[in-house]
Amino acid sequence: MRVLFNEELEQVADDLETMVSDVQASITTAGTALLNSDIEAAQSVIDGDAKIDDLESSIVDQCVQLLAKQNPVATDLRVIVSTIRLASTFERMGDLARHIAESARRAYPQPAVPQQARDLFVKMQKRVEETAAQVVEMLSNRDTKTADEIIAGDDVLDDLHHATFSVATSDTWEGTSQDTINLVLLGRYYERFGDHAVSAARRVVYIVSGFDPTKEPEHTAPDPD
Amino acid sequence: MRVLFNEELEQVADDLETMVSDVQASITTAGTALLNSDIEAAQSVIDGDAKIDDLESSIVDQCVQLLAKQNPVATDLRVIVSTIRLASTFERMGDLARHIAESARRAYPQPAVPQQARDLFVKMQKRVEETAAQVVEMLSNRDTKTADEIIAGDDVLDDLHHATFSVATSDTWEGTSQDTINLVLLGRYYERFGDHAVSAARRVVYIVSGFDPTKEPEHTAPDPD
Repeated sequence: MRVLFNEELEQVADDLETMVSDVQASITTAGTALLNSDIEAAQSVIDGDAKIDDLESSIVDQCVQLLAKQNPVATDLRVIVSTIRLASTFERMGDLARHIAESARRAYPQPAVPQQARDLFVKMQKRVEETAAQVVEMLSNRDTKTADEIIAGDDVLDDLHHATFSVATSDTWEGTSQDTINLVLLGRYYERFGDHAVSAARRVVYIVSGFDPTKEPEHTAPDPD
Repeated sequence: MRVLFNEELEQVADDLETMVSDVQASITTAGTALLNSDIEAAQSVIDGDAKIDDLESSIVDQCVQLLAKQNPVATDLRVIVSTIRLASTFERMGDLARHIAESARRAYPQPAVPQQARDLFVKMQKRVEETAAQVVEMLSNRDTKTADEIIAGDDVLDDLHHATFSVATSDTWEGTSQDTINLVLLGRYYERFGDHAVSAARRVVYIVSGFDPTKEPEHTAPDPD
């Protein structure tokens, strides 16, 4: 479903989709940096985050201009307000990809991911890449079916995140304190990335349906931090 | 400086100030829960977070209504858009206070804070309470001087946060993996609380001055007059 009507709204929608594509590339490259100790990949994510930040500023500025010039109502207004909030969510997802890349750079040439938790982080990376692809699809077609899948699918990432704590507190854990610190921080970054995707999915449901599922008790809103 | 003009805008501003006061009470009580292993305090923060979430929803709804009815421009428009974003920031600060309370509840009757890092968390708690008080003051008078102090003062919290890693990686660290996990997660919550206060301060500078300092990280806000 396409809910953006005139050219200026289309431009903002295009910029928002560009922002999401950049976030998708950023989290994918951050995974390469983290799991392959690839310093060039890490640096490219860190350097590239400024573009995502600039896109957010541009999108907010465009939305403010549209509000000033058009006095939009109903769906158009909902789209513009939600676009401002979505841009903020995607900017934060970009920050989290950068944090993952920074962890890889800090640990380089050693891997930032403790060996005993590597399999879990490989799975978390695969999962966030799938989630990022879903967010791109959702944005390109304002598809609430994909939004619902993102919301429902976040449990997978949460379970993997909790599993990292089980590894670090098991009798067989051989990691140093620094390993534990890396495991906790990286796990947190992945978990937040997923939570922000859920937050974005809820906003798209709101755009399309006018209904805010975060107000439904059976949907627990994520806690983007 | 007061930049909200008509009654409806005043109502939103009052709700936003109520939200900030609730966040201040929440982070203060969360500190009591954490540092005194006070389970009742923890539960009250956890239960009270729903009110902060509801206030955000109400503020956003009111702002959308104002945008639909009034076609505000210039400062009024900037105030309304910034209010939507500020409400989101304060909602997240409330979430972080809840996370701290949940950590205290999870560890109860044991303290969630490792003994060797207790002094640092006492200092971090003191610092976020000072920050919360500054945010309340800033909101009540749209004071960019206080906003500047919040932005400049965040280094204190960042330094305390980094110090927790030094404790956990020192040769004298006697904590378990669970202690290290708690230290990292709690430190992250405090750091993020401070980051959100800085974000709120930048938005208030934007409301008052029309200049967005997030686009110039080194910028110190201009005098509103």
